[in-house]
Amino acid sequence: MAGSSFGTIFKITTWGESHGKAIGVVIDGCPAGLPLDESDISQYTDRRRPNGGSMSTKRIESDRVEILSGIFEGKTTGTPISLIIRNEDQRSKDYSQIADSYRPGHADYGFDAKYGFRDYRGGGRSSARETAARVAAGAIAQKLLKSMGIECSARLTAVGDIPASDPQAVEALVNRCREDQDSIGSTVECTVKGMPAGIGDPVFEKLDANLAKAMFSIGAVKGLDIGDGHLAATAKGSTNNDAFRMEDGKVSTATNHAGGILGGISNGSDIRLTVYFKPTPSIAAKQNTVNRFHEEIEMNIKGRHDPVIGARAAVVVECMTALVLVDALLLNMTSRLDRILDFYQH
Amino acid sequence: MAGSSFGTIFKITTWGESHGKAIGVVIDGCPAGLPLDESDISQYTDRRRPNGGSMSTKRIESDRVEILSGIFEGKTTGTPISLIIRNEDQRSKDYSQIADSYRPGHADYGFDAKYGFRDYRGGGRSSARETAARVAAGAIAQKLLKSMGIECSARLTAVGDIPASDPQAVEALVNRCREDQDSIGSTVECTVKGMPAGIGDPVFEKLDANLAKAMFSIGAVKGLDIGDGHLAATAKGSTNNDAFRMEDGKVSTATNHAGGILGGISNGSDIRLTVYFKPTPSIAAKQNTVNRFHEEIEMNIKGRHDPVIGARAAVVVECMTALVLVDALLLNMTSRLDRILDFYQH
Amino acid sequence: MAGSSFGTIFKITTWGESHGKAIGVVIDGCPAGLPLDESDISQYTDRRRPNGGSMSTKRIESDRVEILSGIFEGKTTGTPISLIIRNEDQRSKDYSQIADSYRPGHADYGFDAKYGFRDYRGGGRSSARETAARVAAGAIAQKLLKSMGIECSARLTAVGDIPASDPQAVEALVNRCREDQDSIGSTVECTVKGMPAGIGDPVFEKLDANLAKAMFSIGAVKGLDIGDGHLAATAKGSTNNDAFRMEDGKVSTATNHAGGILGGISNGSDIRLTVYFKPTPSIAAKQNTVNRFHEEIEMNIKGRHDPVIGARAAVVVECMTALVLVDALLLNMTSRLDRILDFYQH
Amino acid sequence: MAGSSFGTIFKITTWGESHGKAIGVVIDGCPAGLPLDESDISQYTDRRRPNGGSMSTKRIESDRVEILSGIFEGKTTGTPISLIIRNEDQRSKDYSQIADSYRPGHADYGFDAKYGFRDYRGGGRSSARETAARVAAGAIAQKLLKSMGIECSARLTAVGDIPASDPQAVEALVNRCREDQDSIGSTVECTVKGMPAGIGDPVFEKLDANLAKAMFSIGAVKGLDIGDGHLAATAKGSTNNDAFRMEDGKVSTATNHAGGILGGISNGSDIRLTVYFKPTPSIAAKQNTVNRFHEEIEMNIKGRHDPVIGARAAVVVECMTALVLVDALLLNMTSRLDRILDFYQH
Repeated sequence: MAGSSFGTIFKITTWGESHGKAIGVVIDGCPAGLPLDESDISQYTDRRRPNGGSMSTKRIESDRVEILSGIFEGKTTGTPISLIIRNEDQRSKDYSQIADSYRPGHADYGFDAKYGFRDYRGGGRSSARETAARVAAGAIAQKLLKSMGIECSARLTAVGDIPASDPQAVEALVNRCREDQDSIGSTVECTVKGMPAGIGDPVFEKLDANLAKAMFSIGAVKGLDIGDGHLAATAKGSTNNDAFRMEDGKVSTATNHAGGILGGISNGSDIRLTVYFKPTPSIAAKQNTVNRFHEEIEMNIKGRHDPVIGARAAVVVECMTALVLVDALLLNMTSRLDRILDFYQH
Repeated sequence: MAGSSFGTIFKITTWGESHGKAIGVVIDGCPAGLPLDESDISQYTDRRRPNGGSMSTKRIESDRVEILSGIFEGKTTGTPISLIIRNEDQRSKDYSQIADSYRPGHADYGFDAKYGFRDYRGGGRSSARETAARVAAGAIAQKLLKSMGIECSARLTAVGDIPASDPQAVEALVNRCREDQDSIGSTVECTVKGMPAGIGDPVFEKLDANLAKAMFSIGAVKGLDIGDGHLAATAKGSTNNDAFRMEDGKVSTATNHAGGILGGISNGSDIRLTVYFKPTPSIAAKQNTVNRFHEEIEMNIKGRHDPVIGARAAVVVECMTALVLVDALLLNMTSRLDRILDFYQH
Repeated sequence: MAGSSFGTIFKITTWGESHGKAIGVVIDGCPAGLPLDESDISQYTDRRRPNGGSMSTKRIESDRVEILSGIFEGKTTGTPISLIIRNEDQRSKDYSQIADSYRPGHADYGFDAKYGFRDYRGGGRSSARETAARVAAGAIAQKLLKSMGIECSARLTAVGDIPASDPQAVEALVNRCREDQDSIGSTVECTVKGMPAGIGDPVFEKLDANLAKAMFSIGAVKGLDIGDGHLAATAKGSTNNDAFRMEDGKVSTATNHAGGILGGISNGSDIRLTVYFKPTPSIAAKQNTVNRFHEEIEMNIKGRHDPVIGARAAVVVECMTALVLVDALLLNMTSRLDRILDFYQH
Repeated sequence: MAGSSFGTIFKITTWGESHGKAIGVVIDGCPAGLPLDESDISQYTDRRRPNGGSMSTKRIESDRVEILSGIFEGKTTGTPISLIIRNEDQRSKDYSQIADSYRPGHADYGFDAKYGFRDYRGGGRSSARETAARVAAGAIAQKLLKSMGIECSARLTAVGDIPASDPQAVEALVNRCREDQDSIGSTVECTVKGMPAGIGDPVFEKLDANLAKAMFSIGAVKGLDIGDGHLAATAKGSTNNDAFRMEDGKVSTATNHAGGILGGISNGSDIRLTVYFKPTPSIAAKQNTVNRFHEEIEMNIKGRHDPVIGARAAVVVECMTALVLVDALLLNMTSRLDRILDFYQH
């Protein structure tokens, strides 16, 4: 089916494979009048690029984003914004092993079962490279949020069970994984400040439901907490409830176990979510698997892969969160008749 | 916005408030030819009803479901199936306290911020009663899955940190909560057996992304794991990857850390998910909060509430899972041209 | 598929068959704060009811609409409004002829080809009775439009080639059709006054495109003109173009060949559309057809049918137009960043 | 809003302005396994290009389509197909007149009212150039239809009131229009052969409703007939009904006034539709209008415009029809449980 679009009013459609000519995204429904140029976007896509650090692949991609439409005289026009990122490093490789084999922890087998065959080069459509397009679109959502006084930011908070606040221990752990031809899981947290209360819907379009869909649409995400998340399952109501109080003339909460969302609707507190990434499935160590001829085989996955997904994925979490929030804010404008009549000045 | 519909092909739309005349659901896109009567549905809605047990409210609701359309000569016709459940216990009560106050842990404040006012009786649209309509619709999805040989079942697995397999300790904990005018969190697990490989989509419509949206659309859900979930964030690739192997002539996996979904597509292993519920926010103990006049107040929430949400919510988890799976299975029929041509017999 | 919903923000879902227990509609996305009671709705559904006049069936339906949800203290709450109309006249009849035969001009054969069987009683889901649910929903859209100063009205303008302004000639024609056991086509025009300029979208969601979908979703509609419509195909640009001019300080047009819409966007002139209905396909005269056993047969269609569809369908045209306009007005609120920032008061 | 997508399963998203860097389209939901290369597409886009004939602009565009994604080893992979057409003729021009003025018959005024400003170069997003992207997408839909034995073709049938079968009279009329600095309306007919019965839905997603939306989404379309269309409004039931009969063992109709669709569902007869285009609004003769400063002005529209829209638009009608049909065929696969169970081989 048509599964490459996300959002209702502010809607993005990504396209492209890891080793095709290019990847890209069409952003439809962006309000007219937002100043935008390519540097607004590259400051986000640069955060996703391999940086040569210990947690990153050694491959170099420039990921230059070109704006093809939707901007006139430096501002969005309200029409679709088409962004393209050329794939540079398309040298022909020997893909024979990966072409026929199902890498453990990857979608290869599912792809063949679904489509009958697949573009196996570099993971094809399921490559993490697809997320560069999301980040490019999310950069625009971020700029819109900022214009409304809303700050959305995500960061790596743990590698395995080591807090990211201890960079030396993290580096040691990562190096050990590399030496062992292994990889390690990671944790990313996202916080949103300045979100107004009243955003989201009470039933299926709960704000947290859409955030959850956004997070699990990122490859390798296996767990999500909103606020205290899974820890709430062992808490008592008397401590888990956040008491409302008045602060500077505004309704506020004394604690924030809920992560800023109650019954699917924002309550004005910071939105907090924690995203759990599995370890990179591409590891150099030998693994047992099967090939498409249904023979059991052993395989070693070659190539340079990030041993930790969360490092580069934090900006993807941030951008997907921003996309959900912008859409919810736009949708929310129609919730009250009095405000609609004001808008149309009757 | 229009947030009361769920699904693309097999689409449900719920309606109704806790203390209005009725609640209900319209199921649109159900294939024609499924034998269906009210008993198919009541076996699921009965599991959600208060049962008078220790974890349940003492209120009695019969929750009889009436089929109003879409069935002819005992079978679905392919047209919308409208189901209605009358609200029986609508005696007039004194709602003055709840009408003006924002209960901690509830959507009351968000509702007022969003809509300007709210139907405060029994939680209105945000009442867990709305899930009875989902369960009624999910019962049909379950019958479709069964006809395809797929079994989807969920159960309460923990109350607080006590495993549900120790019912005596659970009962003791729950009784202690009641005595303390408190409530406790809970955990529900759902398992799907017999799901074919190749179902789901690689990008935004990942099978796990849609399951995540479904789960977080259930009130009080704060965390979700697919497969090993948040534990994968501290695992290594060499142990977290599930090796493919051949079993009875079919591709299978030696372990199932992934929970049956890789890259958003089912791989034929059991789908496993764990849902974390916060403790019931309505507790009898005194709480601090504010009212709609923005005055700080104390409130005691009267009424008989379940101290543990997961007990009655397990069937909601199961039914929402079934709804996601049916929709994905139907959508998947168009993935390959050869199968489409077979279908249309050319 | 799920084909019983219409609209994006202001979304309706109809359900029910002609001879089932009831028909109904769920309106989701109606803004909160609109005063609404059943009399607001009945003034529209009454216009669609058989009135015993010469152009109408002799059957009597009361079509009483009951509001089941979404209203609190006399106002819409922003949650789904569920409306139900019980089917009263469900006496058991001998449907054996219609059950097995494909009535010319009806969907019977298509239904069997699509679903394998059908609820044949009174046309089942394809009965014009379904439009009573649309009218009930459209009544709410009309009330919203009126609150914004927009008037939308439709009326029968011709029966066959006789203008409705000549009621005597119309009556004579209709009586002749009845005597001949025949039926006759008709024309309905709809006019919208007070629509602001700038509503609609430039590409697929053109205002006229959505109006066209709405009109052709009404049974028996075979033609549509926007403004001059098909006559524009023989006109010259110099006469067909509507010159812009200033009038009372506002941009206006000297003529209105375009019918108020240019490039899919309203221009502030009256919206004008003309809808062409085929003659009622159910006629008493003998017709050749086939049955579901693929035998050629002759059939006479019994029962009392309107000989002219447009008389009772005018209010359906009006209500479907209103639904399109309300949705477009709500969607349009997000088109400009400056107005969004005003709305959120930053 | 997000108005640049069309379709549910087979979904296209177009982007780009007349004088931006490029235009393009993303086709999402195309089944895997369709052989496709750029020549499959260019045979359709070539029909839309200016050909230098009497009815066409003199401007030359090569409109070369480049496939950027979604194809591997010569076949569609099931992932998004991204197509791009570079805009070649982007020389800087003096747009000062058009920038400030509202051309009669164009969307200029509506754009400013909606978005606050617009990309005025060559009509921006509202340029007919956008339809090149639709045609590129429609070429793929056409190839799918052909693989299923369905033929969909459209052609210009009249210029003004001259039938296209009289090319000499047409040429004389067109030349006269040019000399008069004027333009003329036109008529396009589309016929679909080989469509199976049972495709489409009974209520809002009627096959003709979606065709109507598709047709009115094409700029300059002002009228549409399905089958006999507006003429049915003056016909009698006894002659307008198409009698069913058996032909070569299949259900067929003796006549085809309905144009192959009854109650929103195909009946196996040829689908016939007639589309009415207004005359080109850009004419060289002097016109009265207003500018964005709300001053009444006179303007002459410079540049070389087609005096007849239908000539180049016939392929757009054909491609939009094909897009609707493919989507309806894919959606229809889920209508019957027995066929679903066959598909999944239980």
